[in-house]
Amino acid sequence: MANITKKVSWSGRGEDSARGETTPLLNGAAEEVRYTRQSSGGGIFHIGRLSTVDLEEDITSEEDSARGRPREIPHNEKLLSLKYESLDYDNSENQLFLEEERRMSYVSFRCLEISRWVICGLIGFITGLIACFIDITVEKLAGVKYSVVKQNIEKFTEVGGLSISLILWAVLNSAFVMLGSLIVAFFEPVAAGSGIPQIKCYLNGVKIPRVVRLKTLVVKVCGVICSVAGGLAVGKEGPMIHSGAVVAAGVSQGRSTSLKRDFKIFEYFRRDTEKRDFVSAGAAAGVSAAFGAPVGGVLFSLEEGASFWNQMLTWRIFFASMISTFTLNFFLSIYHGKTGELSNPGLINFGRFVGDSVTYNLYEIPLFIIMGAIGGLLGALFNFLNYWLTILRIRYIHKPCLQVMEAMLVAAVTAAVSFAMIYFSNDCQPLGEENSEAYPLQLFCADGEYNSMATAFFNTPERSVRSLFHNPAGSYNPLTLGMFTLTYFFLACWTYGLTVSAGVFIPSLLIGAAWGRLFGILLPYITTNSTIWADPGKYALMGAAAQLGGIVRMTLSLTVIMMEATGNVTYGLPIMLVLMTAKIVGDYFVEGLYDIHIKLQSVPFLHWEAPATSHWLTAREVMSSPVTCFNRVERVGTIVDVLSNTSTNHNGFPVVTEMAASDEPGKICGLILRSQLIVLLKHKVFVERAHSRLSQRKLQLKDFRDAYPRFPPIQSIHVSQDERECMMDLTEFMNPTPYTVPQETSLPRVFKLFRALGLRHLVVVDSENKVVGLVTRKDLARYHLGKHGLEELHLAQT
Amino acid sequence: MANITKKVSWSGRGEDSARGETTPLLNGAAEEVRYTRQSSGGGIFHIGRLSTVDLEEDITSEEDSARGRPREIPHNEKLLSLKYESLDYDNSENQLFLEEERRMSYVSFRCLEISRWVICGLIGFITGLIACFIDITVEKLAGVKYSVVKQNIEKFTEVGGLSISLILWAVLNSAFVMLGSLIVAFFEPVAAGSGIPQIKCYLNGVKIPRVVRLKTLVVKVCGVICSVAGGLAVGKEGPMIHSGAVVAAGVSQGRSTSLKRDFKIFEYFRRDTEKRDFVSAGAAAGVSAAFGAPVGGVLFSLEEGASFWNQMLTWRIFFASMISTFTLNFFLSIYHGKTGELSNPGLINFGRFVGDSVTYNLYEIPLFIIMGAIGGLLGALFNFLNYWLTILRIRYIHKPCLQVMEAMLVAAVTAAVSFAMIYFSNDCQPLGEENSEAYPLQLFCADGEYNSMATAFFNTPERSVRSLFHNPAGSYNPLTLGMFTLTYFFLACWTYGLTVSAGVFIPSLLIGAAWGRLFGILLPYITTNSTIWADPGKYALMGAAAQLGGIVRMTLSLTVIMMEATGNVTYGLPIMLVLMTAKIVGDYFVEGLYDIHIKLQSVPFLHWEAPATSHWLTAREVMSSPVTCFNRVERVGTIVDVLSNTSTNHNGFPVVTEMAASDEPGKICGLILRSQLIVLLKHKVFVERAHSRLSQRKLQLKDFRDAYPRFPPIQSIHVSQDERECMMDLTEFMNPTPYTVPQETSLPRVFKLFRALGLRHLVVVDSENKVVGLVTRKDLARYHLGKHGLEELHLAQT
Repeated sequence: MANITKKVSWSGRGEDSARGETTPLLNGAAEEVRYTRQSSGGGIFHIGRLSTVDLEEDITSEEDSARGRPREIPHNEKLLSLKYESLDYDNSENQLFLEEERRMSYVSFRCLEISRWVICGLIGFITGLIACFIDITVEKLAGVKYSVVKQNIEKFTEVGGLSISLILWAVLNSAFVMLGSLIVAFFEPVAAGSGIPQIKCYLNGVKIPRVVRLKTLVVKVCGVICSVAGGLAVGKEGPMIHSGAVVAAGVSQGRSTSLKRDFKIFEYFRRDTEKRDFVSAGAAAGVSAAFGAPVGGVLFSLEEGASFWNQMLTWRIFFASMISTFTLNFFLSIYHGKTGELSNPGLINFGRFVGDSVTYNLYEIPLFIIMGAIGGLLGALFNFLNYWLTILRIRYIHKPCLQVMEAMLVAAVTAAVSFAMIYFSNDCQPLGEENSEAYPLQLFCADGEYNSMATAFFNTPERSVRSLFHNPAGSYNPLTLGMFTLTYFFLACWTYGLTVSAGVFIPSLLIGAAWGRLFGILLPYITTNSTIWADPGKYALMGAAAQLGGIVRMTLSLTVIMMEATGNVTYGLPIMLVLMTAKIVGDYFVEGLYDIHIKLQSVPFLHWEAPATSHWLTAREVMSSPVTCFNRVERVGTIVDVLSNTSTNHNGFPVVTEMAASDEPGKICGLILRSQLIVLLKHKVFVERAHSRLSQRKLQLKDFRDAYPRFPPIQSIHVSQDERECMMDLTEFMNPTPYTVPQETSLPRVFKLFRALGLRHLVVVDSENKVVGLVTRKDLARYHLGKHGLEELHLAQT
Repeated sequence: MANITKKVSWSGRGEDSARGETTPLLNGAAEEVRYTRQSSGGGIFHIGRLSTVDLEEDITSEEDSARGRPREIPHNEKLLSLKYESLDYDNSENQLFLEEERRMSYVSFRCLEISRWVICGLIGFITGLIACFIDITVEKLAGVKYSVVKQNIEKFTEVGGLSISLILWAVLNSAFVMLGSLIVAFFEPVAAGSGIPQIKCYLNGVKIPRVVRLKTLVVKVCGVICSVAGGLAVGKEGPMIHSGAVVAAGVSQGRSTSLKRDFKIFEYFRRDTEKRDFVSAGAAAGVSAAFGAPVGGVLFSLEEGASFWNQMLTWRIFFASMISTFTLNFFLSIYHGKTGELSNPGLINFGRFVGDSVTYNLYEIPLFIIMGAIGGLLGALFNFLNYWLTILRIRYIHKPCLQVMEAMLVAAVTAAVSFAMIYFSNDCQPLGEENSEAYPLQLFCADGEYNSMATAFFNTPERSVRSLFHNPAGSYNPLTLGMFTLTYFFLACWTYGLTVSAGVFIPSLLIGAAWGRLFGILLPYITTNSTIWADPGKYALMGAAAQLGGIVRMTLSLTVIMMEATGNVTYGLPIMLVLMTAKIVGDYFVEGLYDIHIKLQSVPFLHWEAPATSHWLTAREVMSSPVTCFNRVERVGTIVDVLSNTSTNHNGFPVVTEMAASDEPGKICGLILRSQLIVLLKHKVFVERAHSRLSQRKLQLKDFRDAYPRFPPIQSIHVSQDERECMMDLTEFMNPTPYTVPQETSLPRVFKLFRALGLRHLVVVDSENKVVGLVTRKDLARYHLGKHGLEELHLAQT
């Protein structure tokens, strides 16, 4: 039934886990490290150096024959990268921590709670400000570009030199895009794309390097302004989510490592548990600012991130979202000269669907479902194309300069295609007074008319979406819409994944709105009774939802976001139906766009549940063993050697009671992290063997917090030969009550414990409480349901 | 700092837990039961019969002096009742279960998943139908009552015999209420009230007896129709949530124990884990039907119940909500003669807020916050009054006939008060054409006018709320509104908690809408510029939100429910602000209404987190010990004796390995539940001691599922003297991998594990994996933050 390849542990596999490997242990301290390995019979025996080497060779030959050398094809969705560390959502409740907590009075806890609220308010405020800044800058730049191009087109149309206009336009766009691409490619590659996959991973518990740094935020904001101004088929909404997350990570820590400023506040929050909560709030604030959807933001955070629903946390996230919308709203109302009018939230504004047109009928439900299915199909096509494009990019376009050139090429092509479309379409619409177009282009139209294709391309995509939703019936020519859908689909697909900061929400909505409106326009032609299909804007909305749902496959949160962005609840039910259909149809073919990109990065992402058919796997099979353990009082040299071992790079070590016979595994009595050991070594918290239990230096939680989150590498810490012989007492610093499971526990049970508590290390023990293995994120993320039942991903040190 | 009374374990304390008590163990098997008790020093010693009796006496004297005899004051929020069992959200992964899971192919899992969706669809459909039934019946009855009373008033007004009209009205109302109260008081007392506290408890993991039975549903539905028709100050929305939950519990099990029908379907879902998920969906479907708020329903379920957010589960809950709204909508559209028009969902319909009036300005935000504060204050007053009323009811009105009489009295008083109000107010409004009043009463007004107070009292409350929201400015006299608010406040407060099925949502909204509108009307008088306060309906909406928030203290879900019920997203932000203020202000004085009622029932309700200042408590202090354990192969007589012990009534027993010395605790090797043992005993799964390991009868999971959830009591199972000497092998049936924690684990850590995984029993072990204690729901629910720091509730066998 299930089809699992034989599990082998090979060199360099477990970064988070603690396994004893042979090759790196050739130094003098090697024999102090305990190796334990679980044999198939259940007994425990010691593996000497030789046997492990045998094992190693065994594996290597197997590797070569069975699956090639994984290192050579670094990006492959059948691999799981080892370069990602995990976040620890489980507090290390060591003595220092407990002492601090016990010292704290009820009032201090109240103060902490209040500071959490203050931080969330700040997060919302700053996120709102950033959204406001992006919005205003993009609008200004679009205005400048429009006037320059319009002047030129008008000038050159008279003398017939259209190609010069085209070149000017393409150059202008490429220049913007080049700027945006340059800073991303050379300064902060992690700022590329929408940032949503990265934030998803972060909230899932994977530490993506540099993803929440100030530099990333700056590059992201500048990058998104450039790429939107550069006329790419992108949106500025996705990056807002990433920006909100960075703001949250920065504000909640009360310092900026990049700026080397420490405000000495919020020190209590300097750990993964608290930081992740704030990042959830930041992401929600970002969504809220982007779409004017505070509830949608909260649901986004929950859907993508939080596994444990906590009422107060949710309420705080909600507060951040609310403040963010409010701030954006308030400043935009000032900017638009209507200070204090707060009824129009969000970066994207779908416009209100009001009045009698906001109704639908039972016979429209099947139509909506059909639209959902179309959206699912088109979404799957989009994802599939983008998947292959990304593979190609990973293989051939990995140098920064190549990436910048590709981005410029896309910008130029986008300009050229738009120009060609405008040139060949002659869809002239009368320039009405009520018209919502801000930048009408006359081009080849008669006086008093404007070119609707040109408008669609010259407007910011947000404005185009709104026009598609709200312009009265007859504003668009079906042919224009069809052509626009087709070209924009491929442009957007090509654009997503470029080395620029940009989101896929708006292009998806635009494509969907275009074909949705087309669908609405064509309906009267198909049926006999043409009066009932009066409002194509409704179908544009459903098409937009279907297309976006088909691409990103979000469910509940997207429904609410769409509801809030349209400012209307009536369409809630049909939007749900459309999104549900789109997801079901799309999932049949290919995963969601974000999941594809996460898989292509080989991130060890934990899904909601263990694969269905995994009940026959137990912790014994899943866990990594042997485990590198430390004694309660350990020789400094041993610790340094284990930490310096670059090929294993373990991050957590069970602490065991000392055993009489050295070849027996010890009983678990705690768990200590690499980061804690590094801080201990840095502060030289050890005593000479002779004076043991005499005067080990006292450390405080503050020392650990100051080092968080960028702990120095072990190489930067100098330990002299004398110091190597000292002893270190770990009792005070280890977590004395790590979660453990027996070996017989089934995989779903292990998974549930691990996922629900957001663990990083889970110790597997035998009936005597002796350590036999360690389960980490990678051990669980490896198993997934493939076409032939349960499959196991391979691990690679990419 | 924290102030905990000395913890004592007294007879009959732990229902869920497994503790060895003395008195009941006077039979022959007593010595086979292991007693272990953790001394304060950490060592383990055997407690003989004598020492426990000492302990018992010790406690009794302490009890008497310190807190009186708890049995005499059964209802007290400082107590925790032992009569409630817990639900087990953690699967018992015994051999039978694992074998079944392993036998299942991927396709079977897909089928299960599809049946889950089908069930959710059914739940939504049936809940929608019930809502539709209630709505139509109530409307019909209200129409009948209106016409009868109107006729009579008109007849008697002419001859001056107003008192006869009054009596007729009061009698009519009382008759309805009597009927509703009779069935509740005599047939199913658990159907009283809104049912929301009960469903909250169920979703929290507390098994409230009979709360999800078919009989409860029938009584609930009939009861709510009677009480609404009886003119009480109640709503029909709260009971819908309860109804949805019952429907879910019934449908998902594929059988009805009340009707003695087993459809032999959905047998896989016959366990607490699955059932609770479906009940969440049912509750959401109920909210969705009541308010036309599918998203709000999902959030309600999550906010009140689920601790572990699972995307697929949420999506299914959403589906159930959607179908429920859709069904209600569809059938109501048929009933109203507009088949297929689906834009008007929900039992309560606030009417759409559309057009230009749907705006607010920055300077209105402080006003909204003030309204929130007023709502918080009034809500706290409401809750406080209702709290004392409930205490009085518990003390003095506990006989069913008294309860019925009180309900009738309230109905009569409500009628009399309304009549007096109508009589003394002479607020006549012109009978316009556009008027939304369905039942205008002329009474003492001139022709072409109607009495607005009479309308407010005669309409269904839903209609009154809508009128308050939408009637144009000037429709209400400030004095009328003030009087109405005052009387309705006290009537609603008196009514909630009566032995009738009725909700508090609508009365709260009505009170709030009334004073909110009053606030809106008075604004122009206070300020100089009177034109800007044109729309008192907006303030009515905010007042309604504030009042409801101040009473029930829901947050995110209530915001979304209000947004969805008004069909408008624009007011999202101010509603949030209002609800947040109301909650903060209200929480300062007294808890939410539902929490008060939960506390008064002494339910062991687990909050989101352990109390803040509880880090200095460890599992050692929290756990119950000694623990009654069984051996892997146990004598039947011992099991029967332990289970028959009525004073302890434990529900879970650790299974330990046999030890050489009988006074040592064994190593944990599993956990078995009372219900499993009962099924084993019923099927006589044991062998004679001589033929041990020979032919123990094979049981299947089906046998356990058939007995679920009403396992027979141990008294109904006859075990002969010969059988008592047989042995029972528990290996196959116990959960071999129960979650365990070491003794040193801090309370917040234990709490987090327990809450996140929805456990029922958590075994505490020492470093040797020997059982030293057991943590159950009551052990954790006992600790709460009081005014003087951490407090401990006492446990009582009420």
